[in-house]
Amino acid sequence: MSITLFAVRTLCCAQLRSESKSVLRVLPLFHREAKHTWGSNKQHRKVKVPFNLRIMGDPKVEEILAPLRAAVKEQGDLVRSLKANGAPELDVKKAVAELKARKKVLEDKELSLTPATFDRALMEDLLKRRFFYDQSFAIYGGITGQFDYGPMGCALKANMLQLWRNFFILEDNMLEVDCSILTPEPVLKASGHVERFADLMVKDVKSGECFRLDHLIKSALEKKAADPKASPELKNEISDLIVKLDGMTKDEMASLLNRFSIKSPLTGNDLTEPIEFNLMFSTQIGPSGLVKGYLRPETAQGMFVNFKRLLEFNQGKLPFSAAQIGNAFRNEISPRSGLIRVREFTLAEIEHFCDPSDKSHPKFKTVQDTKILLYSACDQMDGKSPSVLTIGEAVKSGLVANETLGYFMARIYLYLLLVGVDKEKLRFRQHMSQEMAHYATDCWDAEALTSYGWIEIVGCADRSAYDLTQHARATGIRLVAEKRLAQSKQVLITQAVPNKGALGKVFKKDAKGIIEALERLSLEEVEGLEKELQEKSSYTINLEGESRTLTSDMVSVRRENKTVHVEEVTPAVIEPAFGVGRILYSVLEHSFRSRENDAQRNYFSFPASVAPLKCCVFPLSGNTEFHPFISQLCEGLRREDVSHRVDDSSGSIGRRYARTDEVGVPYGITVDFDTVSTSTATLRERDSMAQVRLAISEIPGVVRELSIGKITWADVETKYPKFEQQEASKTA
Amino acid sequence: MSITLFAVRTLCCAQLRSESKSVLRVLPLFHREAKHTWGSNKQHRKVKVPFNLRIMGDPKVEEILAPLRAAVKEQGDLVRSLKANGAPELDVKKAVAELKARKKVLEDKELSLTPATFDRALMEDLLKRRFFYDQSFAIYGGITGQFDYGPMGCALKANMLQLWRNFFILEDNMLEVDCSILTPEPVLKASGHVERFADLMVKDVKSGECFRLDHLIKSALEKKAADPKASPELKNEISDLIVKLDGMTKDEMASLLNRFSIKSPLTGNDLTEPIEFNLMFSTQIGPSGLVKGYLRPETAQGMFVNFKRLLEFNQGKLPFSAAQIGNAFRNEISPRSGLIRVREFTLAEIEHFCDPSDKSHPKFKTVQDTKILLYSACDQMDGKSPSVLTIGEAVKSGLVANETLGYFMARIYLYLLLVGVDKEKLRFRQHMSQEMAHYATDCWDAEALTSYGWIEIVGCADRSAYDLTQHARATGIRLVAEKRLAQSKQVLITQAVPNKGALGKVFKKDAKGIIEALERLSLEEVEGLEKELQEKSSYTINLEGESRTLTSDMVSVRRENKTVHVEEVTPAVIEPAFGVGRILYSVLEHSFRSRENDAQRNYFSFPASVAPLKCCVFPLSGNTEFHPFISQLCEGLRREDVSHRVDDSSGSIGRRYARTDEVGVPYGITVDFDTVSTSTATLRERDSMAQVRLAISEIPGVVRELSIGKITWADVETKYPKFEQQEASKTA
Repeated sequence: MSITLFAVRTLCCAQLRSESKSVLRVLPLFHREAKHTWGSNKQHRKVKVPFNLRIMGDPKVEEILAPLRAAVKEQGDLVRSLKANGAPELDVKKAVAELKARKKVLEDKELSLTPATFDRALMEDLLKRRFFYDQSFAIYGGITGQFDYGPMGCALKANMLQLWRNFFILEDNMLEVDCSILTPEPVLKASGHVERFADLMVKDVKSGECFRLDHLIKSALEKKAADPKASPELKNEISDLIVKLDGMTKDEMASLLNRFSIKSPLTGNDLTEPIEFNLMFSTQIGPSGLVKGYLRPETAQGMFVNFKRLLEFNQGKLPFSAAQIGNAFRNEISPRSGLIRVREFTLAEIEHFCDPSDKSHPKFKTVQDTKILLYSACDQMDGKSPSVLTIGEAVKSGLVANETLGYFMARIYLYLLLVGVDKEKLRFRQHMSQEMAHYATDCWDAEALTSYGWIEIVGCADRSAYDLTQHARATGIRLVAEKRLAQSKQVLITQAVPNKGALGKVFKKDAKGIIEALERLSLEEVEGLEKELQEKSSYTINLEGESRTLTSDMVSVRRENKTVHVEEVTPAVIEPAFGVGRILYSVLEHSFRSRENDAQRNYFSFPASVAPLKCCVFPLSGNTEFHPFISQLCEGLRREDVSHRVDDSSGSIGRRYARTDEVGVPYGITVDFDTVSTSTATLRERDSMAQVRLAISEIPGVVRELSIGKITWADVETKYPKFEQQEASKTA
Repeated sequence: MSITLFAVRTLCCAQLRSESKSVLRVLPLFHREAKHTWGSNKQHRKVKVPFNLRIMGDPKVEEILAPLRAAVKEQGDLVRSLKANGAPELDVKKAVAELKARKKVLEDKELSLTPATFDRALMEDLLKRRFFYDQSFAIYGGITGQFDYGPMGCALKANMLQLWRNFFILEDNMLEVDCSILTPEPVLKASGHVERFADLMVKDVKSGECFRLDHLIKSALEKKAADPKASPELKNEISDLIVKLDGMTKDEMASLLNRFSIKSPLTGNDLTEPIEFNLMFSTQIGPSGLVKGYLRPETAQGMFVNFKRLLEFNQGKLPFSAAQIGNAFRNEISPRSGLIRVREFTLAEIEHFCDPSDKSHPKFKTVQDTKILLYSACDQMDGKSPSVLTIGEAVKSGLVANETLGYFMARIYLYLLLVGVDKEKLRFRQHMSQEMAHYATDCWDAEALTSYGWIEIVGCADRSAYDLTQHARATGIRLVAEKRLAQSKQVLITQAVPNKGALGKVFKKDAKGIIEALERLSLEEVEGLEKELQEKSSYTINLEGESRTLTSDMVSVRRENKTVHVEEVTPAVIEPAFGVGRILYSVLEHSFRSRENDAQRNYFSFPASVAPLKCCVFPLSGNTEFHPFISQLCEGLRREDVSHRVDDSSGSIGRRYARTDEVGVPYGITVDFDTVSTSTATLRERDSMAQVRLAISEIPGVVRELSIGKITWADVETKYPKFEQQEASKTA
């Protein structure tokens, strides 16, 4: 059924769904290099990076982009026709690499034409200074790709996760689980990670230093192109090679190493041949050294291996969603780009198990009018811009494969806006066939535009029955659900029937394994057994590498008609996977603001619901008469579970406001001289810097309601009298 | 200062604070074997285990215990006198082992005399059936010591942690951090874990199978004692050896292996000599294989290495608390006892940094009247029972070392009661000197009585300045706070002054390291340098193993008087460390109930605040007229963020109530035939099974207020009319 839907949907891109797909469950989040990174070979902290999406549609800009768009479309059409004509795989692959290269040129140009500026160095300075997060173990020299969240980052992350629980788990009654991080090897063999979850690297033959191969070649070629003696032809060729790097095979990259005599950039030593380096951290479980394990590279497998228990918990009924928040680990060869590419990260994943023949969703109508910026595979091939569609239209036209996938895309979109991702810098990009695992029927990434380019922050894939099938195959345990048939039916059952007595006599303790193996035979295998018994009066079965010969008295074949009321189905899985650190980073960039006329007064405009602290309490001066009011406020805020701090440092009130604005505290309460006589204080809102005056007893409740979004600041301004700021006039 | 307090406090036990203390930061939680385990060699799931603390004081019981108490006291007195007289260390050690043995006999007897019963198998069956938690990767055969939490266990744990955040972090404005799990080796070398964090094991010389040495010896000796041919003398000796095992050295255990010719219990093969097995999981960080790392065995180190940033975040002021919730890992040799001893677990730790000369606490008075069952080191040595004291009395008398430690003990106690630990099965036990790391000045474990005996669930230690000192030593970075002096003072500064020019000329790029090394010299070392320069006109300094000779023109010594207004102090640390899985397990045991007259109807009486689901909605039958009311209720509950599920399965209402009681859902809402005409429904409370009837529109708000403890069930019963149960009469 999903196949049918898929065929309808991909009228124009069907040719692209090729055979050359990776078998690996990719969960591309954090694995693939971000495709649209720019400036990655520069010193990040000193770069000012411009961007603004709102340029789209500007006629001047479109004029510049037009030839680039045409170049993408030309290549897209070539790929389509090659596939339609059944061209050799290698030709298709080369054409696709060129298509990707042209797409990248287009996107880089688009980004470079945007007028607005964002100063990453300024923001990173603030993040470090106020300890949102920073490199782990810095006093020991630090480790790349590992970060510690300080109080502000930790609270921001915890609030985002609490909202996630409410928004997804509570809202849809999902079954949340908390599974082991240490994972024994067989589980990750079945999932494909042991074999395929790898990047290419080379080593310095003398020092043993490792380099990620694509990064190394890129920077070596850039250096060669920068040489004044380089010919224009060479420069052109190199820029062409660099954009194609991403699609190259191991052999192609190895030949570049040879051709350009690339050496270790640190020592000039020779390099080894390219090696596949598995990105999982391995360890031994238990003391014997015999049980190999890995730190999980994603949280999803824990939900798949618990499928039977979860189904039972749900009283055997489909559909249901499992969810898990937890850490995962990837041993990146050379992590960089701050929080975007790290070795240890928090994922929040949902696995929605449903009937593969019915992917409708009962709550789809509640989200169908949600408008989302969608970048379809077709538009990408045609060099077009993404377009805004309602998710209802997208599902109806077949662009998004089914209601359930559409429901989750809309819910992901709404969650991202809720936590502070900028609507104008958020799109869903559909995977083209080369990016999608072979079993997936559709996959959309939520991408945020940051100073690192468009980065994937949530993946949302229809993964079909792949994972459950793999684990069932590896364990021999049926991971299926029963589905009641509309009407019962007669089926012919063909079974191999062991004669347990005869088997036991001959094979002793091995008989059990043989009987189990006979039970596992497929219909074709049973028919083969029947034929072999008829022809040779014996049948040879393979058991863990050994073959055993069974004679006609040990096994026979039985056929019978049965009336069945249910059928077994392996559920399909729709998987939204959230990279929490990446979302958090996007929120930071999108919330970073400077005050008008004062570029040095920066602040984060976080939504109150995720802000690390909801409010700050300021005594205007050190006057002891203020103390009881401060205590009363703190007590009230604690009772309402509103996170807060008192800032009684000696700076002017204006300076103290600026300090709390910096960490994105949405509300400030100031106790001043009027408080003593009137038991009122002022309440200040961060973004507008507006203030109102109200009774101290009311303040904690009002801040709570603001923080959880029950009321807005506009409501507060309507209800309470406006107050002119203390900062201009009476500082202590 | 802490030393002084300590001396006051331990008037009777000071002799016990010996030199034979472990250097390792133990964080005994999960590391030491639970001291008071019984039945550990039996098949747990089939054992009925009795316990009840309320026997204490029963005269009949006290009569039986009296000789055992006397035996403990006799030995306690012997230990005291040996220490007072400076007896040889070995003698003291032996006497202490005997003391521990007698304590264990006393405690085992106490527990065995209790009349009540708790059926662990019954509870475990329920936990498994309703997927609170279960063995990880069971479809792959499972891994011991690893568990996956299912929806009910996961929600229970998440609720406990959310409460922990509110109760500790929000209440005391702690600085929460979220640090890396992967930890490079030098960090754990400094903390002592690389060298000391180990258990003894032996291996089967042929199969390589590993056994934890103390467990192995114990079961081998028990087997020998059970032999009908064993002489009474042998039996006695063995029972004596078994209780002393816990205190034995590697050599003593090795000699038992020889003497009793203990072989592998599985194969009968010979065993290796005892080996120290480090309990940390090791891995490689990065692809080179050169950076060795471990999975953190506790979360505390992340807070210590971030001390400087946290202090700065707190504007340089002491005291402050850091807090962290996260996973830690210990590669147990042979984990067992369910959730009590696992390889992967969640910790919630607080590090309170304070002035070592002032451990008063401003909020101590808010908790001083809290009554806690305290089991002092003295009482343990005297064979006495623990006694109930207010924490105010305990601090005043010096039993608890200081206000800050006392404050945290009281807060821990209150938190544990809040989440559902039974007050009658909770005590704080003081560490005796042998258990305490040498730098700790006082340490109390919150212990819960479970069917595994008394198990440590929270540790609370005054760790002095040990950890910061260790990391400062390893990194050369000063981990100190500045403390304003009451009045400024003159101090004589003695410094080694490098001549940078001269050093640079001779040592080139190594000069920087030499200059830094000179800056790090202690006062004694500078004086040594001065002397050496005077005598030989040169000074030899060691730099990473190489010695460099400096001449008089390269370095000199300067003395000057300075007026200082502040002094640097290395903060002391008070550390409450919560084993979340163990607390959760205790809550499960303590909340497990059977209905009167029906031992098969079991349920968990969780406090509503931590219950996995707050309520269930029941349509009395499949009548479609009920649907809009069910939707209205669900919508309202979602709006109030109240977790809930609809149970519209076909069972009778009584059966469905029983099913939700099983998972501890505190409230049930039933939509019945009267609902259709009156828009009211019934609200049922789990423990009393009482019901009231109220308007559907009011129900979500009432359930929310009940769930967060704003109102009680008694309030609800007063306000709304009582309702007779549906279950008896009109089922659908």
